[in-house]
Amino acid sequence: MSGNTIGTLFRVTTWGESHGPAIGAVIDGCPPRIGISAADIQADLDRRRPGELASASPRREQDRVEILSGVFEGQTTGTPISLLIRNRDAASGAYEELRGLFRPGHGDITYQAKYGFRDHRGGGRASGRETAGRVAAGAVARRLIGRAGIEVAAYTKELGGIAASVCDPAKAMTSPLRCPDPEAEERMLKKLEEARASGDTLGGIVEILVRGCPAGLGEPVFDKMDADLAGALMGIGTVKGVEIGAGFAAARMTGFACNDPITPEGFRTNHAGGILAGITSGAQIVIRVACKPIPSIALPQETIDAQGDPATVTIEGRHDACVIPRIIPVCEAMVAIVLADHLMRQRAITP
Amino acid sequence: MSGNTIGTLFRVTTWGESHGPAIGAVIDGCPPRIGISAADIQADLDRRRPGELASASPRREQDRVEILSGVFEGQTTGTPISLLIRNRDAASGAYEELRGLFRPGHGDITYQAKYGFRDHRGGGRASGRETAGRVAAGAVARRLIGRAGIEVAAYTKELGGIAASVCDPAKAMTSPLRCPDPEAEERMLKKLEEARASGDTLGGIVEILVRGCPAGLGEPVFDKMDADLAGALMGIGTVKGVEIGAGFAAARMTGFACNDPITPEGFRTNHAGGILAGITSGAQIVIRVACKPIPSIALPQETIDAQGDPATVTIEGRHDACVIPRIIPVCEAMVAIVLADHLMRQRAITP
Amino acid sequence: MSGNTIGTLFRVTTWGESHGPAIGAVIDGCPPRIGISAADIQADLDRRRPGELASASPRREQDRVEILSGVFEGQTTGTPISLLIRNRDAASGAYEELRGLFRPGHGDITYQAKYGFRDHRGGGRASGRETAGRVAAGAVARRLIGRAGIEVAAYTKELGGIAASVCDPAKAMTSPLRCPDPEAEERMLKKLEEARASGDTLGGIVEILVRGCPAGLGEPVFDKMDADLAGALMGIGTVKGVEIGAGFAAARMTGFACNDPITPEGFRTNHAGGILAGITSGAQIVIRVACKPIPSIALPQETIDAQGDPATVTIEGRHDACVIPRIIPVCEAMVAIVLADHLMRQRAITP
Amino acid sequence: MSGNTIGTLFRVTTWGESHGPAIGAVIDGCPPRIGISAADIQADLDRRRPGELASASPRREQDRVEILSGVFEGQTTGTPISLLIRNRDAASGAYEELRGLFRPGHGDITYQAKYGFRDHRGGGRASGRETAGRVAAGAVARRLIGRAGIEVAAYTKELGGIAASVCDPAKAMTSPLRCPDPEAEERMLKKLEEARASGDTLGGIVEILVRGCPAGLGEPVFDKMDADLAGALMGIGTVKGVEIGAGFAAARMTGFACNDPITPEGFRTNHAGGILAGITSGAQIVIRVACKPIPSIALPQETIDAQGDPATVTIEGRHDACVIPRIIPVCEAMVAIVLADHLMRQRAITP
Repeated sequence: MSGNTIGTLFRVTTWGESHGPAIGAVIDGCPPRIGISAADIQADLDRRRPGELASASPRREQDRVEILSGVFEGQTTGTPISLLIRNRDAASGAYEELRGLFRPGHGDITYQAKYGFRDHRGGGRASGRETAGRVAAGAVARRLIGRAGIEVAAYTKELGGIAASVCDPAKAMTSPLRCPDPEAEERMLKKLEEARASGDTLGGIVEILVRGCPAGLGEPVFDKMDADLAGALMGIGTVKGVEIGAGFAAARMTGFACNDPITPEGFRTNHAGGILAGITSGAQIVIRVACKPIPSIALPQETIDAQGDPATVTIEGRHDACVIPRIIPVCEAMVAIVLADHLMRQRAITP
Repeated sequence: MSGNTIGTLFRVTTWGESHGPAIGAVIDGCPPRIGISAADIQADLDRRRPGELASASPRREQDRVEILSGVFEGQTTGTPISLLIRNRDAASGAYEELRGLFRPGHGDITYQAKYGFRDHRGGGRASGRETAGRVAAGAVARRLIGRAGIEVAAYTKELGGIAASVCDPAKAMTSPLRCPDPEAEERMLKKLEEARASGDTLGGIVEILVRGCPAGLGEPVFDKMDADLAGALMGIGTVKGVEIGAGFAAARMTGFACNDPITPEGFRTNHAGGILAGITSGAQIVIRVACKPIPSIALPQETIDAQGDPATVTIEGRHDACVIPRIIPVCEAMVAIVLADHLMRQRAITP
Repeated sequence: MSGNTIGTLFRVTTWGESHGPAIGAVIDGCPPRIGISAADIQADLDRRRPGELASASPRREQDRVEILSGVFEGQTTGTPISLLIRNRDAASGAYEELRGLFRPGHGDITYQAKYGFRDHRGGGRASGRETAGRVAAGAVARRLIGRAGIEVAAYTKELGGIAASVCDPAKAMTSPLRCPDPEAEERMLKKLEEARASGDTLGGIVEILVRGCPAGLGEPVFDKMDADLAGALMGIGTVKGVEIGAGFAAARMTGFACNDPITPEGFRTNHAGGILAGITSGAQIVIRVACKPIPSIALPQETIDAQGDPATVTIEGRHDACVIPRIIPVCEAMVAIVLADHLMRQRAITP
Repeated sequence: MSGNTIGTLFRVTTWGESHGPAIGAVIDGCPPRIGISAADIQADLDRRRPGELASASPRREQDRVEILSGVFEGQTTGTPISLLIRNRDAASGAYEELRGLFRPGHGDITYQAKYGFRDHRGGGRASGRETAGRVAAGAVARRLIGRAGIEVAAYTKELGGIAASVCDPAKAMTSPLRCPDPEAEERMLKKLEEARASGDTLGGIVEILVRGCPAGLGEPVFDKMDADLAGALMGIGTVKGVEIGAGFAAARMTGFACNDPITPEGFRTNHAGGILAGITSGAQIVIRVACKPIPSIALPQETIDAQGDPATVTIEGRHDACVIPRIIPVCEAMVAIVLADHLMRQRAITP
């Protein structure tokens, strides 16, 4: 595996920098004869676009996806699907003063350490913009697993410490923060405005639910379903924690309380979160990810320059006050990509 | 990748069932001229062995490791290292009555769904015994990263809801529960005894610390250091949650509070847990994993049989009351294996 | 691995169909700080372009490569390098009548069998046009191995049964058929003209030489240098045979004659072709590939249609009379890509 | 991929040195519920065992295979199959004088260059003995593809320059040299005896035929069926050339002669060797490999010692006069392993 590819059979490679000419993704291994159009992909991309909210980034990208290969007469052919999104509105000049400064909480200093050289403009490869490629690829994955009856939906469980008390992604689809609890959402929006006004940012928790997943997906030991999901989600820049089912709360339960009794109608509870010994059980898959606050803040911060001398950095430019709700389609995409891969792997061992 | 192999350059494959003739691991890609002996590996294996504690499993395995290849005159040769551990004390007859029952919280039902056929004895491949192969391989990984000055150490942060208030793995090395806080440990031991007496089990939280890791390890986007660590740790059977640095607490911080200021002497705080944009920063790596209570409990549980009819199962046999402390060397091994792989990957791009 | 990616560390994925909007390649894993420009890549692409010869394909593509990512201020950054080549002159209408016919010697019938659906225009993914992506990626690989002093050069050893009696790729660089023997080349050109006039095509043999390769590249057992080179070259559509060093002639030698005596100055002979036990020896690497005649001929051929009924097909359109010399940069590219990967792998195990 | 593993879904890792305690293989990804026993594997191993012929190696190994995991009650479980073969008769003392000498035609000098350290006893990892692990794994692969009706059979096409004029593997099964032409075989045996008497060795050509392979196996571009077969076969130590179908002869044919006309009953000829554009066509797969003479000869040879000074080496000990017929089951095993992998990959994309 290389650093920019995920998957064994359904393989997604993303490429591109925030302020280069374009970003994109190549999907290799997608089965043939799946109906997909640029409009289908665009619909998912539009959900992660900045500018929908007052509190979101004012950068205006059209994010128009172009399918360059692998789809013929509206269906996948089985060959690599190349997806291209041009960067249109990249004001890289605004980043010139950051060339010699390392922004706290960003990858500037670690990219410099790793490569000895970096594209400093807008975070380069480490920019959140890279996730557009994942969402585009995820749209194809969603089609593939959708044909097997699998649906992925995520929603805002918590933002700035305010928790939603409703768990229903369907109700969240059209809400501004993808939150199914209107009362909590109102408080979240208010807190977001306060953070933005003070030049600061907030974090939150996203819950991802998978319905209709058949039992038997996931490989033993190292490519377990939960391992692959955790790796895929922790690989989103903002994510600092992942839990499945009862998650960290399971550490405080007894075995009797935590085990899900099995009945002829299914599991009586779902502390396992739909995965047992790394393999799906047929119950709903439940995952939560902790998103840190966006590190690009408008307040002065202590840092060093390229010479290692103390410096102060204040980040201007266009930034969201919270990675939520834009991160939601990214989480959904990563889960769909992992599921697509495991669905194909399971087919491979079925005569 | 296949389900039983982890790594790109430093690759570990484990094999073996709980009650088969043996278990083992093959390490492919280990660099040459690293001093290693069976005794070195044995020392790590002994730390995960059952029977050290009154509260641990009474199953008595000698777990004698044999090096079958890849080491010559005390040094690695660069060719695959095959490690073998015979299963000596496997009373599989005791499991015969479980052949047609699915134990709640175990992989019995999902293995059956996936493969349509399973080795039901003692959990087969899904048994915790498989982790002996990981620990053996991890011992080699620890040697490799140790030569680069990297040290991995884990300790018991919480058990049965009781938290340690000391964070010092060195102090935990010789304690019965690998807990650096003697007062908390005393309470943990008491709670463990109560659980065991009632036929129940407990969960807990392990914290893993990595010292001496150079900046620059980890790949962008999908093979990020945090993504690979999360995947490797979530792949341990008992783990239901993983967090890095501030983890889930980061979701409730503001950007200004969460960002770690950079000074000429290093980072002023370590909310990032040593990883920024998926690449190590040179700060200490901090990871916590949530371990669910062991599902093998001596209490009657509701389940179904192979025909799908309701049944009751009561698990007899030899089981720990908590996966802690035996899981600790497994966590250390997985982290060491991931670090070894990334250390080699970084060397590959350095001229 | 997926079907459209090659390499472990230096990884190349190509995508695109002959008559889609574009073709391209993504290189993941290229080390940072290697100087490369679009013009460097263009120079290699121009050598595989049709239309240089009277006997070559009259299709006129500009094959302008665009670097979309991974290069900043003239140097690689270590992140994925995305290369795009638009298809400008694709007269797909000309292929409409082939939609329901399977051209003999082509992949039409096997793609149909594999996927149940195919982009029939110009061979789709199986078109020789796909190799432009490989050549573009190979140009980057050549830069990388060039910094280690490794040079790859190929030439026409035989065409239409006419053998060159000179072995010197340097002399072949500017010749029309990349043949270092002017007298043989004259006869080759004549034979090519005759084949073209009669609507037929010719095959030939290309020899690839690698100079300056250090000893020690290649992995034991399955990723041997010769195994990887053979796989990479046999993966070129036209190639039906690969041999290293003495190759098939070695089957008729005795051990004493075939073994290369070792002297303090190096090997006295080079029947091994620079590779012993799958690992480079420091001697020149010598590989030959057999290219079949291009299957697109202007003569009527027996085939079947989509219903399985007998039919006759006569291929019109724009085709070369021989894959030589255009295949030469493709062979060089594949060898360079394999060497780049193994060079990086060797660095990974060197402390 | 690592150097000692082959395959994407059906993955085989071999390990072990010629004179270490044991050699073996781990198969990961084999589908469940395939009947296999140690006796089945032993039957294949016995065919590559030395000592069957007067002209073969006098080393006597029992090569008893032990199945350590992945098989339960006579069927595969879907988990890794670990196969172990102890080295019983390893007279490593005989190799002590070779510690500081590099045998011509062997990997001694390249292993030393690569690793700076090697197990010199009997060729260590580069010994032909390693292929026992491949044959054992191949036996499982043969079972898997056998259930899909695919059969692999190879025979001796040429030995010491003497060609068989019969092409029928079935007739070769019980012949001493696996040659279907008794008259040619008699001459081969005589020539082998002469070579052995003079302390020299011979090479030859093996042809491998695959019957019953369905159309549609093989991936486009880089994991083509012919590419994977060529890589797998060139990775056998003795092989210096691989050709498919018409092979090198295709380079001298015209397109009209080389193209296989398609009829409702199938292909009229089989110059393609059963593979078109890298994908199986349903016709018989035909592959030939050129085997160099065994480099271990009893004649004095020019070489250097560890200090780089000139030296003479004369190899004593136990060696075959020709790698044929022992290499035949190895060729069959490699082809079966590649086919098993592609069969599973094809299933993965079939809904």
